[in-house]
Parts: sequence; structure tokens; C-alpha cells
Amino acid sequence: MRMVDLIEKKRDGLVLTDEEIQFIIDGYIKDEIPDYQMSAWMMAVFFKGMTADETAALTMAMAQSGDQVDLSNIKGIKVDKHSTGGVGDTTTLILAPLVAAAGVPVAKMSGRGLGHTGGTIDKLEAVPGFHTEWPQQEFIEMVNKNKVAVVGQSGNFAPADKKMYGLRDVTATVNSIPLIASSIMSKKIAAGADAIVLDVKVGSGAFMKDINSARELAGAMVEIGEKVGRKTAAVISDMSQPLGYAVGNALEVKEAIDTLKGKGPADLHELCLVLGCKMVMLAGKAESEQEARTLLEEAITSGKALEVFKVFLSAQGGDASVVDYPEKLPDAEFKINVCSPADGFVEKIAADQIGMAAMLLGAGRATKDAVIDLGVGLVLHKKIGAKVKKGEVIATIHSQTDHIGLSEQKILQAYQFSSTKPNIIPLIKE
Amino acid sequence: MRMVDLIEKKRDGLVLTDEEIQFIIDGYIKDEIPDYQMSAWMMAVFFKGMTADETAALTMAMAQSGDQVDLSNIKGIKVDKHSTGGVGDTTTLILAPLVAAAGVPVAKMSGRGLGHTGGTIDKLEAVPGFHTEWPQQEFIEMVNKNKVAVVGQSGNFAPADKKMYGLRDVTATVNSIPLIASSIMSKKIAAGADAIVLDVKVGSGAFMKDINSARELAGAMVEIGEKVGRKTAAVISDMSQPLGYAVGNALEVKEAIDTLKGKGPADLHELCLVLGCKMVMLAGKAESEQEARTLLEEAITSGKALEVFKVFLSAQGGDASVVDYPEKLPDAEFKINVCSPADGFVEKIAADQIGMAAMLLGAGRATKDAVIDLGVGLVLHKKIGAKVKKGEVIATIHSQTDHIGLSEQKILQAYQFSSTKPNIIPLIKE
Repeated sequence: MRMVDLIEKKRDGLVLTDEEIQFIIDGYIKDEIPDYQMSAWMMAVFFKGMTADETAALTMAMAQSGDQVDLSNIKGIKVDKHSTGGVGDTTTLILAPLVAAAGVPVAKMSGRGLGHTGGTIDKLEAVPGFHTEWPQQEFIEMVNKNKVAVVGQSGNFAPADKKMYGLRDVTATVNSIPLIASSIMSKKIAAGADAIVLDVKVGSGAFMKDINSARELAGAMVEIGEKVGRKTAAVISDMSQPLGYAVGNALEVKEAIDTLKGKGPADLHELCLVLGCKMVMLAGKAESEQEARTLLEEAITSGKALEVFKVFLSAQGGDASVVDYPEKLPDAEFKINVCSPADGFVEKIAADQIGMAAMLLGAGRATKDAVIDLGVGLVLHKKIGAKVKKGEVIATIHSQTDHIGLSEQKILQAYQFSSTKPNIIPLIKE
Repeated sequence: MRMVDLIEKKRDGLVLTDEEIQFIIDGYIKDEIPDYQMSAWMMAVFFKGMTADETAALTMAMAQSGDQVDLSNIKGIKVDKHSTGGVGDTTTLILAPLVAAAGVPVAKMSGRGLGHTGGTIDKLEAVPGFHTEWPQQEFIEMVNKNKVAVVGQSGNFAPADKKMYGLRDVTATVNSIPLIASSIMSKKIAAGADAIVLDVKVGSGAFMKDINSARELAGAMVEIGEKVGRKTAAVISDMSQPLGYAVGNALEVKEAIDTLKGKGPADLHELCLVLGCKMVMLAGKAESEQEARTLLEEAITSGKALEVFKVFLSAQGGDASVVDYPEKLPDAEFKINVCSPADGFVEKIAADQIGMAAMLLGAGRATKDAVIDLGVGLVLHKKIGAKVKKGEVIATIHSQTDHIGLSEQKILQAYQFSSTKPNIIPLIKE
């Protein structure tokens, strides 16, 4: 088999066999296939696409290119969740104890990564004492005991995907549905999930800018799941403004705690219930959406979800009293209000600009080695549809310095006002 | 400017500016743009094509990436000719003295290259004493004096094209009309041509397998010529069987001499006249096709073309008596006849198989360092449409050994017979 022939085959729109796709991934990870052939092949994939079978074969080849977690010692169906990026997305922090409270085992391995704020692991580290490095055996024991554990990724998951992603980034081959879908799914599969719930974000702050691409991506991932024997469900949700009010690590933990107490922002609460329902159903803990929803609502109102959260924090060394005393979480020295420059209604809040404002404060990593300040971030007070007066506070910046010129500017750029009340965009698209 | 943005621009079907194309070629030749970006860009070009302006800018950027020959000290309009590959193509050997006899200066730099037989330079070296390494100054003086000189390429012409071609070969991006057209034209322009006549071959033995691709390639090259101020004309000619009868270096020199004497194979004679007419007209030596044809026919019948050939050979140290005594050319020890396995008509002669048969005998180079045997090759006796009887000789192998099993096999594979007389394919398509 020669790579040049496989490039040509894809270029001409023909379908590659499982063996051919395996050959490509094996060869690439072993440096037998050079970058210049891989990038030409991926550009051909960009133009010609891949069938569901090809995409599934690619996913499995990438999943098997590195470490694979064996979660078979955990009782029950392990359901993982993945969101395709977004700003102020605290859903994992809420969903993990919430669905655990409904009896679904949550064995989550999470990354730090780059972004506007830290990853789930960073956010959890805002809880004093919480730690995320656990040997595999203890991780599994915690899940069996408490139904939930969230640890840092220690293995080398889907290295083929990592290598390919680096190349796609510099060869304009990122925006290919089969390549995105297989990239996401390969990592979830390598991490040992039995079932996967996908939250595909759409809108200005998301990777997918329009509903059709989001639908296509969601469809491709669900199809991969079916082909490789992982039950998979997808939700398409709006990211045309940040989710919830808080953007920042400790700030999002507080918001998560509020939500688990039933006092969170409506959009965040609703998205967690919708995603949670899918997880509960895939885990076989409910027969219908309605039954699942009732289970989850009861877990919140009864305080059970919050209780599971406390146990989970304690088990991993964290100070669970932050749940009752959120002021124990890291804080920022300065709180600076950002005021509306006009009378009117909030028409748009560019989520990516808000994310950038948080990153400028130190809430996220621009480069791999950047140090995150867990206390900083920002809290929005007005979201789309809110009526505001000129000079009214629309957001508060939490910063360690009072020089926040650029962040304030980004926030003001993100907000757009209109004189008439805008149509409200539904949170859950599909 | 970032290469990734230019890949994306081309991927999305937008038009690159001259500056952007210059940036790509400059960056690639300086190793600032890596192979993996170049191959992704070329695959995007494969799918999205290039406008005539883009192709012209690419051609000039490649032509200017290395040495450029200055032929301005040669009086008159220098017309170069290029054939897009083929088997048994002896046209250059004939055209050079023929159009020179009509007053067109021929300053030809030719390569050795890989192929079924040697390049023009190799073929000429079959003439005892002929040599091809000449300082630029003497080359120009010979052309001014004798109207014709053919020397080996000494400069580093269009290195960007060379580097790109190597990459295209292993990334399935060879078959792109703008990339092929700019590759050919950049080398001709770097070699100093004022005007260019293109012989685009079409058929089983050619690079272009069908008339539409050939037409597209011819059109793209003529358009480049117009855009960059080089008068360019193209002829599309048939290569569904080898041109002439001889395939091999000394054998083709003999055939060229025969043709200059007016006794050559009809197809080779006709193609030389058609291409020669274009050259004479581009050089401004005739107003009409008819006038040009008359000039060239007279040059043959009067013996003037043959005389120019002798002077040209002598000037470059060659033994011009080979024209009258072709037996002085290198010869092969064994002449082995290949006989028809059937009664019928010759329906097809796969030119690439015939070429392969010649290469197996040692007439061409499979690798850069292979040594050519100038005396070997083969002569066809029956071409398409000929009636043959079983056992009748269809070709003769000229070999230094009598073990020619594989060559004979290739020749027999190349020939296809039918019981009815096939339609004759016209030599000159357009």
C-alpha cells in the first residue's frame, strides 16, 4: 500500500477501506507517512468528505493509536459528555454530581487545555485542597463508591488525533466535519466511555457558526457512535451569548454550586437538565425524557445532588465547606463595574469577545505554559433581551489589578444594544 | 502574510494576488514554507483551479526562482518548442535545422532527464564527436553564425518548479492543469524563449489521456504566454501510437536524417511541418500557414535543411558524415524480429508499452544515474491500420544481447489486432 495512492483515491472521491484508513493512521503515528502527504490527504478529505463507515474507521484507528482506559471495573453504563467549546460553560461541574445523584456513574478524565478560562480540572482546583492526580485504581474505586470522580488526563490519548490536529491548524484543514467528528469521538472512546452525550454549540461564540454545520457535525458524531457500538445522543444548543453569568474559574464554581442549589441562571440550569436527561437515558436509568427530568429535578430540590457534590469534593481532598461558604473560594482584589453606554435593550453579546476579556484578566491560557489566576473573571448582569439604562451596570470585572482597560473595552465591544426588544433565541435548538 | 491564510483562501475558491503567489514561491524556495503547507495548498489548487492571472503569476514566480538565460544578443525572435512527452518523438532533432534553414534562430537548451529513451542531448551524442557543453558566449555565437545550436542545460532553471514537482509526485497533485501549465512554461521562459510552440500529445502514450484535458492544458499554456508577453501557439497531436518507426537514440537520429532528406515516416514528417509552420510564423518569417509550409518544404527538397544540420553537427564537434553514412552511428549487436501472433489489422499500439520495451533494452534512464546505450532500441514495421499476416515481422529489436524476452513481451502486449480495418486516428487533432 502506498500513501500517494490513498491520497489519489480520496482526491477522486472514492471510498477508503478500513485497512487503508488504518494504514494511514498507523503510518502517520510511526512517522512513516510524512506531514506533507497527510496534509494533502486531509485537504482531499476537506473537499470530498468521508462516508460514515470511513469516519468510524478513522475514529477507531485514532482511538487505538495510544492509551485506552479500561473502565470495565466500574459498575453500570459509563456516560461521558462533550461540549464543542463555548464561553462560560460550567455544565460539567454541575452535570457530574447531578447525574451521579440519579445513579449514573461518572468517571470523567478531563484536560486543562487552552481557552478563555481553564478546563474543568482547573476550575475544580479552585476548591482548596482538591486534587486531580489519582492512580487509575483509586479513580475507579472513587467512582464505584461515590458514583463520581473527575481526574486529570494522565495517559496519552489518541496521539494520532493530537498530531493531526496540529497539522490541520496550519494547513487550513480544521473545518472538515468528518475530521472534527472523528477527533472528538476518538478521545471519548479512548477515555473508556460506554455512551456519549454531545453538546454541539452553535452561534457567534462557538466553533460552529450556523445551525446547518452544527446539525451536520452532530449527525456525524452520532453516526460514528452507532457504528462503533457506543450509544450516542446530541443536543444542539445556542452559544450566541455566554452561558450563565460567570466567566472565570472560581466564579464558575460558585455558579455551579448555585445551580446545584436550584438557584442558578435559567439558561445554565435548563441546558444541564436537557443534557442530564440524555445521560440518564443512555445509562438506562429512565425510560422517557419526562422520567429522567423528574429524577434530576428531584435530585436538585431534595439537596441530593449538592450532597453528592460535597462527597465528591471531599473524596478528592477538597474543602466541601465551600458549598456553604463560597467566599472560601479564590477571590479577586478589585471588582470594577462596567456600565451601559446607552439606553435600550441588550441585542447581542459576542461570546468570543467576553471570553477574550476573561482571558486578558488571566482566567485562561493563551499558551500551554501560562499560569491561570483562579480568582479573576467577570460576571454579566444583563443578558440578551434585558432592558438597560445608560450608566446602569451591565457586568462586573473581577481583577487583581485596577488596570483593566482592555478587558472593559472587550466587554463593551461584545455588547450590542437596540431600541426595540429583540427576539429571544431559544437555548436548545434541537 | 501567513501561508495558512493563503491555503484557506485558495481552499475557499478565492483568487490570490500576484504578491500572494510570489510570497508562496519565495517562501517555499527559501524553506520558510514547509512541504506540508505547500502540499495542502497544491491540493486546494487541484480542486479549485487557478485563474489565468494566477497561473501567469505562478509561472513568472517559478521562472524567476533561479537562473534566467539572456538570449538578447541573438538576432531575431527566438522560438522554442516543447512537447508534453511521448514515445519515439524525434521532432526536435528535425525541427532545429529545419526552421533554422527557414531563417528562424534556434537556441535550444535541452535536458537529459528520465524516460523511455534519452533526451535530445543524449540522442545528439550518438553522433561521434558531438558535444553539448558550451560556454554561454560560444553558444550565442554559434546561433548567430549557423542559426542553430543545441546545448545541455547548465543553469539552475526554475528550482521552485523542480521542488514543487517532487512534492506533487508523492501527494497526488500532479494532474492539475494550472500546475502542469505553469511548470512547463516557467522552464521555457527561464530558458530565454521569446516565443513558444507547444506540442500537446494526447492518447494512451501521452500524459493527457483525452482530448478535453489536452485542449484545456494547451489553452492554459497559450493564455500564460499571452499574459507574460511570450507569443505562444499550441498543436494537439495524437500519441495513441509511437511517432515514426524508431524508438532509441541512434535509431531516432537515423530517422531524423531520413526525414530531413524527405524520406521519413509520414506522421513524423507531417508533425514536423505543422510545428515548424507555427515556429516560422511566430518568428515572423511567414505571414500565413501556407507560406510557412512552402518555405519548410523547399528547405527539405532543396537540401538546405540537411545542409544546416551538417553545419550544426560540425560546429559542435560532430562527425557530419553520418548524414551520408548513417552506419557510422552506434549500432546494436543483435537484430531480433518480433512477429505477429495473428492475421488481421493493427488496431492499437500502446505507446507506453513500446517505450517500456525500449527502456528495458537500455535506451532510456529509469533512474538519474542510469547509463544509456545509444545503439539499442526498436523499429516498428507495422503501425495502426496495417494489414498483417500471422508470423509477419511487425517490429525489430536492436539489442546488445539476445536475451530480450521481456522487451519482446512488452511489444507483443502493446500490439492489438482486429479482423476489420480500424478507423485511422488523425495525427493533428487541433
